[in-house]
Amino acid sequence: MELGVIAAELADAARRLHQRGFMLATSGNLSAVVSREPLRLAISSSGKDKGSLKPEDFLVVNEHGQTAGAGKPSDELPLHLELADKAKAGAVVHTHSIWGTLLSDRHATDGGLTIQGFEMLKALSGVKTHEHREWIPIIENSQDYGVLRAQVKKTLAAHPASHGILLAGHGLYSWGKDVSEAVRHAEGLEFLLEVKGRKEQAEGR
Amino acid sequence: MELGVIAAELADAARRLHQRGFMLATSGNLSAVVSREPLRLAISSSGKDKGSLKPEDFLVVNEHGQTAGAGKPSDELPLHLELADKAKAGAVVHTHSIWGTLLSDRHATDGGLTIQGFEMLKALSGVKTHEHREWIPIIENSQDYGVLRAQVKKTLAAHPASHGILLAGHGLYSWGKDVSEAVRHAEGLEFLLEVKGRKEQAEGR
Amino acid sequence: MELGVIAAELADAARRLHQRGFMLATSGNLSAVVSREPLRLAISSSGKDKGSLKPEDFLVVNEHGQTAGAGKPSDELPLHLELADKAKAGAVVHTHSIWGTLLSDRHATDGGLTIQGFEMLKALSGVKTHEHREWIPIIENSQDYGVLRAQVKKTLAAHPASHGILLAGHGLYSWGKDVSEAVRHAEGLEFLLEVKGRKEQAEGR
Amino acid sequence: MELGVIAAELADAARRLHQRGFMLATSGNLSAVVSREPLRLAISSSGKDKGSLKPEDFLVVNEHGQTAGAGKPSDELPLHLELADKAKAGAVVHTHSIWGTLLSDRHATDGGLTIQGFEMLKALSGVKTHEHREWIPIIENSQDYGVLRAQVKKTLAAHPASHGILLAGHGLYSWGKDVSEAVRHAEGLEFLLEVKGRKEQAEGR
Repeated sequence: MELGVIAAELADAARRLHQRGFMLATSGNLSAVVSREPLRLAISSSGKDKGSLKPEDFLVVNEHGQTAGAGKPSDELPLHLELADKAKAGAVVHTHSIWGTLLSDRHATDGGLTIQGFEMLKALSGVKTHEHREWIPIIENSQDYGVLRAQVKKTLAAHPASHGILLAGHGLYSWGKDVSEAVRHAEGLEFLLEVKGRKEQAEGR
Repeated sequence: MELGVIAAELADAARRLHQRGFMLATSGNLSAVVSREPLRLAISSSGKDKGSLKPEDFLVVNEHGQTAGAGKPSDELPLHLELADKAKAGAVVHTHSIWGTLLSDRHATDGGLTIQGFEMLKALSGVKTHEHREWIPIIENSQDYGVLRAQVKKTLAAHPASHGILLAGHGLYSWGKDVSEAVRHAEGLEFLLEVKGRKEQAEGR
Repeated sequence: MELGVIAAELADAARRLHQRGFMLATSGNLSAVVSREPLRLAISSSGKDKGSLKPEDFLVVNEHGQTAGAGKPSDELPLHLELADKAKAGAVVHTHSIWGTLLSDRHATDGGLTIQGFEMLKALSGVKTHEHREWIPIIENSQDYGVLRAQVKKTLAAHPASHGILLAGHGLYSWGKDVSEAVRHAEGLEFLLEVKGRKEQAEGR
Repeated sequence: MELGVIAAELADAARRLHQRGFMLATSGNLSAVVSREPLRLAISSSGKDKGSLKPEDFLVVNEHGQTAGAGKPSDELPLHLELADKAKAGAVVHTHSIWGTLLSDRHATDGGLTIQGFEMLKALSGVKTHEHREWIPIIENSQDYGVLRAQVKKTLAAHPASHGILLAGHGLYSWGKDVSEAVRHAEGLEFLLEVKGRKEQAEGR
């Protein structure tokens, strides 16, 4: 697909996720694969306000994370490259929500959390029933993106069926074959995290 | 009414319910009766994002659920057909909200839940006082739509005065004589579910 | 002021309050005084969706609640007339919010609730300090609008300094010298009700 | 920068923060430095609805808080002047949120509150890691703006690294080098306050 079309889709997704409170301030970032061979990724520039991202706020990087022109890609680029490569993601959405922050903090020591029994699970690609048991791995947060990338790689290898990864006290990475599927996964998982968070609260946990 | 007008009304309702968080990702679906004799139902296509549904994303099916042209109607079509037939619904709205998911999960073993004493009950057709006791039946969730349809039929026969049916851990079916009434019932019932959920929480239940 | 201008202001206020979740479904209603001598009140028609009210959805009634033309004013017209008369309200806004419903239900047996110590109190006309103690009277809900009108009259006489009145399990009446002040009071009081509700929850009440 | 451009940015920020529920009714105010030498500050007029602020609703004041023309600046002007001067703020945003009100009330006797361990901290200028420990000082609320200004001055001197100051039961002051950074700080801090508030609730505090 053309870069302009993809960047417009990504900008639109950012506006929508910001409006829902999942990308407040400059938090969150998004990317999509422009070509596979050679790998070219469009990713949001670093430090931009996600409520007013424009198509020109996306940069194209190669498989080494290098840009052709000016501008600085999001610091979390290495994680996007890893997901584009190992999870075969066509698009990656990284959200920071209230419930994602709370639950990833609370369950960090368990290494992940399970969601089961809710119809919204069917928003996840390949899931055919609410009885599905989704494991969302939680990685310890770090400011060393090399360390995080290695953790994401290990996590993907250990849990190839997962649709998202949480960084503790930080937020959710979700992905899909294209922007539309990645956004669907982000909205579905964030909904499920809020349901789980409120259910735990009602149960006094 | 003309198909174009009905499809535009349904698309508008979907945008509004998505914005309020009741149809996140691809969850939820909507339908309206285009003609009674023979029965023709306009229903949202399967797997579409509910935040950007367009009138052309609705398909027309006959009483057997068959479409004339291309496209695949929502998987939950059998429940819409049952409600159009047995509940004499002119329109059906199916929402997935946080509170509907939580309460249908919590009260599933009771077979339903009661709401009484709130003025918002008067949003429901035929209800004249807040003292009205609304029973919202809860059906066990299933991926077998034939089973669900049979449950909906049985439930409608047992509780003909109900304005909505919950599927456990899944969401709410509400309906009305036309799109506008069905949306009013959906908004009213979702409001009442949140009130009930927060009240139970305050009471430590 | 001209009817057209007032009706446009009221329609705009309804859209805004519906969007914030304070007038879901057909709940809530609004009015404004068009002339004092003789009394002429513009009020929302009965049963209209508050998310898409148009200026032509407002009717003009006289001091006896009679309309000149077609259309049926909101059932709660008698309360609007009482507030326009005894509270000297230039505009009246009636909202149905989650927290207003919960708190009016919880504190109904106390006959009202107190809010004190919050800066938002200064959104209320004449209030100069957060130390102000606002008493919001709560009236038992009824479907007899004559009874409710008499209760509103009695309440206004007993608590002339109050800026709003709650109907138990129903919602909030607030008012002001014009539409803009009435909306400010509604937003301010609804904010304070949510703060009070969450504070009580944190304190395990 | 030109006054017209700054006033448009401030009006846009107010709409956005009002929409998120952080400037309901007439609560909240915003300012930005138009020139440093001599100091000229654009600030929202007193008592305007923050959901519909227009560029012409901003006034320019000098270092003594005097306006050249008509109109009355926000009552909280002295605090904006202090922050423009001592914190070298290019823009100041004052929000009133539910969680800011609750937490500033709850922690007032501690003189402040700590936030640590969340990635959103990196929305704050100069913060490079989620391990950062942000102290948000809380000042006792007052209607004497001279007293408040003196408290802000003392607080800035004691906590020069803080990115925001809470007024107890009132709201948050945050600032930045320009409007965009001040809004980023406001959104980031409000997010963190909600996370902290819900975490304390889950822990039964």
